[in-house]
Amino acid sequence: MSQPPFTKIIEALPTTVPFVGREAQERARMKPFRARVGANESVFGPSPMAIAAMAEAARDVWKYCDPDNFDLIHAIAAFHDVSPENVVIIEGIDGGLGLANRLFVNPGDAVVTSDGAYPTFNFHVAACGGQLFKVPFRDDKEDIDALLSTAAAQKARILYLTNPDNPMGSWWSSDAIEELIAQLPDGTMLALDEAYIDTAPAGTAPPIDTNNPMVLRFRTFSKVYGMAGARIGYCIGEAAVIRQFEKVRNHYGINRIAQVGAVAAIQDQAYLSETVRRIAEARDAIVRISKANGLRPLTSATNFVTVDCGRDGDYARAILQGLLERDIFVRMPGVAPLDRCVRIGAGLPEDMVLLEQVLPEVLASVGVN
Amino acid sequence: MSQPPFTKIIEALPTTVPFVGREAQERARMKPFRARVGANESVFGPSPMAIAAMAEAARDVWKYCDPDNFDLIHAIAAFHDVSPENVVIIEGIDGGLGLANRLFVNPGDAVVTSDGAYPTFNFHVAACGGQLFKVPFRDDKEDIDALLSTAAAQKARILYLTNPDNPMGSWWSSDAIEELIAQLPDGTMLALDEAYIDTAPAGTAPPIDTNNPMVLRFRTFSKVYGMAGARIGYCIGEAAVIRQFEKVRNHYGINRIAQVGAVAAIQDQAYLSETVRRIAEARDAIVRISKANGLRPLTSATNFVTVDCGRDGDYARAILQGLLERDIFVRMPGVAPLDRCVRIGAGLPEDMVLLEQVLPEVLASVGVN
Repeated sequence: MSQPPFTKIIEALPTTVPFVGREAQERARMKPFRARVGANESVFGPSPMAIAAMAEAARDVWKYCDPDNFDLIHAIAAFHDVSPENVVIIEGIDGGLGLANRLFVNPGDAVVTSDGAYPTFNFHVAACGGQLFKVPFRDDKEDIDALLSTAAAQKARILYLTNPDNPMGSWWSSDAIEELIAQLPDGTMLALDEAYIDTAPAGTAPPIDTNNPMVLRFRTFSKVYGMAGARIGYCIGEAAVIRQFEKVRNHYGINRIAQVGAVAAIQDQAYLSETVRRIAEARDAIVRISKANGLRPLTSATNFVTVDCGRDGDYARAILQGLLERDIFVRMPGVAPLDRCVRIGAGLPEDMVLLEQVLPEVLASVGVN
Repeated sequence: MSQPPFTKIIEALPTTVPFVGREAQERARMKPFRARVGANESVFGPSPMAIAAMAEAARDVWKYCDPDNFDLIHAIAAFHDVSPENVVIIEGIDGGLGLANRLFVNPGDAVVTSDGAYPTFNFHVAACGGQLFKVPFRDDKEDIDALLSTAAAQKARILYLTNPDNPMGSWWSSDAIEELIAQLPDGTMLALDEAYIDTAPAGTAPPIDTNNPMVLRFRTFSKVYGMAGARIGYCIGEAAVIRQFEKVRNHYGINRIAQVGAVAAIQDQAYLSETVRRIAEARDAIVRISKANGLRPLTSATNFVTVDCGRDGDYARAILQGLLERDIFVRMPGVAPLDRCVRIGAGLPEDMVLLEQVLPEVLASVGVN
């Protein structure tokens, strides 16, 4: 019997996965978590209108989606005041980042990101055979100047930036991003991941310039819209660039229920505002609880708060472990020195009560002295 | 301003899409179709248990899916009596075919399919830079001998076969497929697309051999399970090969509502059987109506009937157009000599009544004399 003919790229790749899922952790510990604040999901859920639309759409799921995503693209275009030709619907930002890599990254091409930033982006670069250059965070922020100089030096095809960023929750102003765009090296695309933009202070997102072919703006319904499991997001860019996604995207790949839900969700901005308010309350609670326990919460523009535990990665990992053991699902940055922190998502009031209860126990158990 | 750095493969590709969607046609004609029997969907819908599970899951869609697809993989493994390690969940067979191409096709590598078979497979080959060799159908069936000899001559990485096939609805016996597997050239993977297997006669699907690393079996919830819009299917293969999908699949890419729906659907085999029965009734109706109008329906193992209109492609296209104008959404094969046919999906009783009403009008209008 012969051997499967894997490509050179596949042969060279390790079988790694970006994250261990919460469910796998629950199966291993043989009990569910009580607070689920580890995956930057929105515990506040989707708009009731989106829920109703999705529940209603279940019986129509025998139909393929509209491969043109006509209704959703038009709703998004209207919301952002851009043309429908500037919008492509993606299977979450994860899916969109995969497509962007396939559009721009030949095997061996350089791609630049921040060390400790979103691992799924790196996963997609690897699967295309790209060569990844990682720039350290600086003062817990993505280091724009170093990202730019690395992109120029390596002739990077893509510069990936998250704003606000994950896992630190920090952000750059619109002015800083516009300056970055102005200074992009020749032939470098900016993949600007704005998954967390809905919770950022006003003045964080630069105006959308659909005349610039070198910038792709990634947005999602997974975070504040509360639809992570629906796998739906979008990318905005110059029309001719957006059209190229047609060459690689899975045209019938969008879930029909998600399409319907997203249309309802984007039209319910009142619910989005209310969610942003509840997230802000939860962030305040995390800040208060962390400080009361002698930890240092970082200022956050996202739906989570990254909390500096004040010592090294081992110490933060011990705290993380203590929280997990006490039924609070959280995650933490994977790379030093960011890994001195744990990342706690905005939770329901009862989640925050649980955090307040168990954090002192956890700190006592890991020896805060 | 610089230019986007598209890859060589992307630069070389035309911006084509596999199919124009039904919705785009409806927008162009500015009215909906009355019978939707063109996309091989199941008008009979999903299991009521799946509908209920999906409707219930809508409010939980704020959670990402379980990236391990644990519950669904275990349900599928139990159903097929294979190990969970032999199963990977895919975003419909479309998604799975995309991943298979990424696993096996370097730019320039040969891939073999049948001329006129599923265009989405070809789309994925093109996006990987593969070189596609198309073997003509023979007697309205995929030509196994010619596929094998072409695969051997071209050192194909993948041989793609649908059984039963689309768009002709014909099929090979289990014995013929096993013989094909035994004769696969060294280094050629068989991608066996069994989207339509649930409506095929007993003895069509060969036993699943999870010891053979050269065969991938693709199954879907899109057809008889009535969940096309959910984008969920699976691939069964040897464990070490299945594990390689971890390198390219979008781990959080499965819609959570679809996961839940698929678990419910596969556990409701009574509903599946009932759907198969209703499809058979509808096929009988299409056969009867076609014959009564002097056309020649081909024997079908799928949820559609391909009807030989008895003349050339222009004639069949005129009939297709006549059906579309009379509110019946149908499609037809794109390649001669298959394009002497139109493809009519199993419809609801009222869809079949409409067909019976309008087909004589259509034939009269295109000049059957």
